[in-house]
Amino acid sequence: MAGGSTEWRGRSVISKVVSLLDAFTPGAPELSLAELARITGLPVSTTYRLASELVAWGGLERADGGTGYRIGVRLWELGALAPRNATLREVALPFMQDLYQATRENVHLAVLDGREALYVDTITGRGAVRVRSRRGGRLPLHATGVGKVLLAHAGDALLHDLCESGLRRYTAHTVVAPGQLRRSLADVRRTGIACAREEMSLGSSSVASPVVDADGVVVAALAVVQRAGRADVRKLGPAVRTAAISTSRALQDRARHAGPLAIRSR
Amino acid sequence: MAGGSTEWRGRSVISKVVSLLDAFTPGAPELSLAELARITGLPVSTTYRLASELVAWGGLERADGGTGYRIGVRLWELGALAPRNATLREVALPFMQDLYQATRENVHLAVLDGREALYVDTITGRGAVRVRSRRGGRLPLHATGVGKVLLAHAGDALLHDLCESGLRRYTAHTVVAPGQLRRSLADVRRTGIACAREEMSLGSSSVASPVVDADGVVVAALAVVQRAGRADVRKLGPAVRTAAISTSRALQDRARHAGPLAIRSR
Repeated sequence: MAGGSTEWRGRSVISKVVSLLDAFTPGAPELSLAELARITGLPVSTTYRLASELVAWGGLERADGGTGYRIGVRLWELGALAPRNATLREVALPFMQDLYQATRENVHLAVLDGREALYVDTITGRGAVRVRSRRGGRLPLHATGVGKVLLAHAGDALLHDLCESGLRRYTAHTVVAPGQLRRSLADVRRTGIACAREEMSLGSSSVASPVVDADGVVVAALAVVQRAGRADVRKLGPAVRTAAISTSRALQDRARHAGPLAIRSR
Repeated sequence: MAGGSTEWRGRSVISKVVSLLDAFTPGAPELSLAELARITGLPVSTTYRLASELVAWGGLERADGGTGYRIGVRLWELGALAPRNATLREVALPFMQDLYQATRENVHLAVLDGREALYVDTITGRGAVRVRSRRGGRLPLHATGVGKVLLAHAGDALLHDLCESGLRRYTAHTVVAPGQLRRSLADVRRTGIACAREEMSLGSSSVASPVVDADGVVVAALAVVQRAGRADVRKLGPAVRTAAISTSRALQDRARHAGPLAIRSR
């Protein structure tokens, strides 16, 4: 990795640590030393030294059997302190539980982060359809119910950017025509409900509704995801919208009593 | 902070970054630059430079109004990748939801981490008693239901250590006599149920039961926390134990199908 070594010489240690941590993703939660070195472009010796310091701290841990590294409990514990998602989750969870009890389907809470939907929390129904979203996971804005809600309220610049870079087709049902997407987002703003019918994964459909803070800003989206082919997912729209409105009101009440919340999306 | 500066000279950058992150705790989730410098013992200029790099990455963020720092979404996202707690939580959550639905009380899932109980997840009942535990939070082993379950199955060395360093009295009901604690832990092992009656906080009591993996190792504890003065919390014991046994079976089933799980406590 001489090339990588040269490239990194002069970079700050902190940027090396960050690139090491960033190597771990939902798709690659466990990495060998060689993989870490390859992904970060750092020499194996540097990678080993930094990873060992992170293991000693608890931010990384060795996988069982010692063949790889993964994110450790200390980072999980620190991450739980992130106040933006913690407050939103705390307020939303009782309503998510109500929605789960009423529908017995997967319930999701997501915020806008960059150009994706970031899943803050999920309740997975026992008999419900298996879905790709998980807490801390990311899914595209144009192909999911929560994503469409967030995109509909994010302003035109983001939609323009996404369309410019091309809307990826995940299934035959994914909306990839900018005009069609734009019209469906106008519907979302008008109705307070967004649907995605097998647009991300074949076999599952979602319906979502916005969570609004005391300043009228959409800070999150709440959704139910059910198996496609049951009744039209839009039938669950009123239930999702009810839970989203209840969550919004609880957020607004809390802001009035505790001062402004810090849960705006980046 | 010249003393701090001297003390830190020669320490690795990574240890400075770690000490900066470690400064954030559930009791101090937001810190000013001056506080960060004081806690870490780093010069203000170094603290500022490192914090700025972490903000640029997303691991820290500026508080609204710009007066302080707090843990950012990027760390939350990375932390969600920690496989130990993620797998346990995924398996346990449906049973926690069942237990919540049956009792309408707070439901907690905790693991042993070092000499404390680390809360992996909590379901907070809408009308239930306010409790001190939160996801990512820590509580003492000898004064909580989950703590007693974990301590009862952790081996004698840990109990010995805790007793040696002195059992802190949180309320008039906290068990601080080593002999009494030892006897109650023997009961926990015999019955599969641990109670803590206002031993951590006046006004709330908990009952807990062990979650056991495919190798027969106790990897977590499940608990219900209710307002003290309702019916004796032990009456909820069979419900908690049922959910804990169901969770254990699901964990064991998964291990059989997916290979050994990596959710052992440190």
